[in-house]
Amino acid sequence: MLIAKVIGTTVSTIKEPTLEGRKLLILRQTDERGTLVGKPYVAVDTLDAGIGDLVLTAHGSSGRQTKITQNRPVDAVIMAVIDHLTVFGEVTYQKE
Amino acid sequence: MLIAKVIGTTVSTIKEPTLEGRKLLILRQTDERGTLVGKPYVAVDTLDAGIGDLVLTAHGSSGRQTKITQNRPVDAVIMAVIDHLTVFGEVTYQKE
Amino acid sequence: MLIAKVIGTTVSTIKEPTLEGRKLLILRQTDERGTLVGKPYVAVDTLDAGIGDLVLTAHGSSGRQTKITQNRPVDAVIMAVIDHLTVFGEVTYQKE
Amino acid sequence: MLIAKVIGTTVSTIKEPTLEGRKLLILRQTDERGTLVGKPYVAVDTLDAGIGDLVLTAHGSSGRQTKITQNRPVDAVIMAVIDHLTVFGEVTYQKE
Amino acid sequence: MLIAKVIGTTVSTIKEPTLEGRKLLILRQTDERGTLVGKPYVAVDTLDAGIGDLVLTAHGSSGRQTKITQNRPVDAVIMAVIDHLTVFGEVTYQKE
Repeated sequence: MLIAKVIGTTVSTIKEPTLEGRKLLILRQTDERGTLVGKPYVAVDTLDAGIGDLVLTAHGSSGRQTKITQNRPVDAVIMAVIDHLTVFGEVTYQKE
Repeated sequence: MLIAKVIGTTVSTIKEPTLEGRKLLILRQTDERGTLVGKPYVAVDTLDAGIGDLVLTAHGSSGRQTKITQNRPVDAVIMAVIDHLTVFGEVTYQKE
Repeated sequence: MLIAKVIGTTVSTIKEPTLEGRKLLILRQTDERGTLVGKPYVAVDTLDAGIGDLVLTAHGSSGRQTKITQNRPVDAVIMAVIDHLTVFGEVTYQKE
Repeated sequence: MLIAKVIGTTVSTIKEPTLEGRKLLILRQTDERGTLVGKPYVAVDTLDAGIGDLVLTAHGSSGRQTKITQNRPVDAVIMAVIDHLTVFGEVTYQKE
Repeated sequence: MLIAKVIGTTVSTIKEPTLEGRKLLILRQTDERGTLVGKPYVAVDTLDAGIGDLVLTAHGSSGRQTKITQNRPVDAVIMAVIDHLTVFGEVTYQKE
């Protein structure tokens, strides 16, 4: 899984019919302190994550192992909202 | 999923028989403003996307979760045409 | 799918039994003009592609969705030989 | 598989129901000497690995081939704790 | 598939039970001349490859399409030992 920050939303009128009603959020990978790294990507949100939240995303076929994403053409899903991260005993991120 | 811009088309006479009639478009990944980043790749179009459109593409086995791509040797599909993108409250892309 | 140029061949005596008789070609990814980018990789050829041809390769489990590759330990297959590529209305590659 | 060092832990209250009770650790890829390279990622621990341990992680659908991870939206699992690594006859890493 | 050189071995006492007796080798990707590029990774050996051999590795779910790796949490397998590589008519690598 990747550690990522939710940075935005997407709106699409024309899409695969099976995606109707699915929320597609824009994320960017972060390091263990929540600092943004890398390019934006899009994942399905099943947990009502908010803009600014740090989350974990699962990719590939693993992204389809939820009721909301199964058998759908999506390759990334938010599967956890992070409360805090600890690295070598130091709290590196804490949800506000 | 990746945010990508449709930049071109491919024509192939010799191909896997199961791909007959499938439209294969050339894309390049973009950031949240539609600025091109990265190398070109090719995805199956199931939504009649046009050149210049910003779209979302699903990759790997997830690219085969549509009626048009299932059981075929394709690893990327356009699953949404983007109307607009919003990042931290700012509209960063709007379809013309 | 990736746009790639066929650059060479591999010969292996010791291999997985299910690969007996499969042709494994060396490729390098190209951009939309056929210019080489990136490192070499190897894909199964099911279309009798020739050295110098520009082709499309499908990767991962999608590389196994042909009669010649199914249930075999291969993760890339040539699924189309490119005749020409067009980007924003300009022909960027034409097979000789 | 990647060689990686366990560097930390994650805590999430809001998560996919099927992940309840799964331990999600933070790792960073290393080279054959255990030197950190690359960005942090998160994997499910099924082996009670400790902070500082060098481990092997399997990714994608392969990350779901354990009793603890099957049918769950996770794309990386720790499948071995490394005792030692040997490269060209030299021991490059030894667990303390 | 990637062209890679076998550079070492791993030893693990604590591991997924289904990996008991599987040989896990350390590899590094090479170019078509056998020159090392990229970071080390680990693959299951099913062909009795030796240190220094140039091999082909299949990744992801394709790495599980052998009797020795099926249904196991491994994402890379050695599926061929390379005898020689030829690029644009020139022999670029020959096994000693």
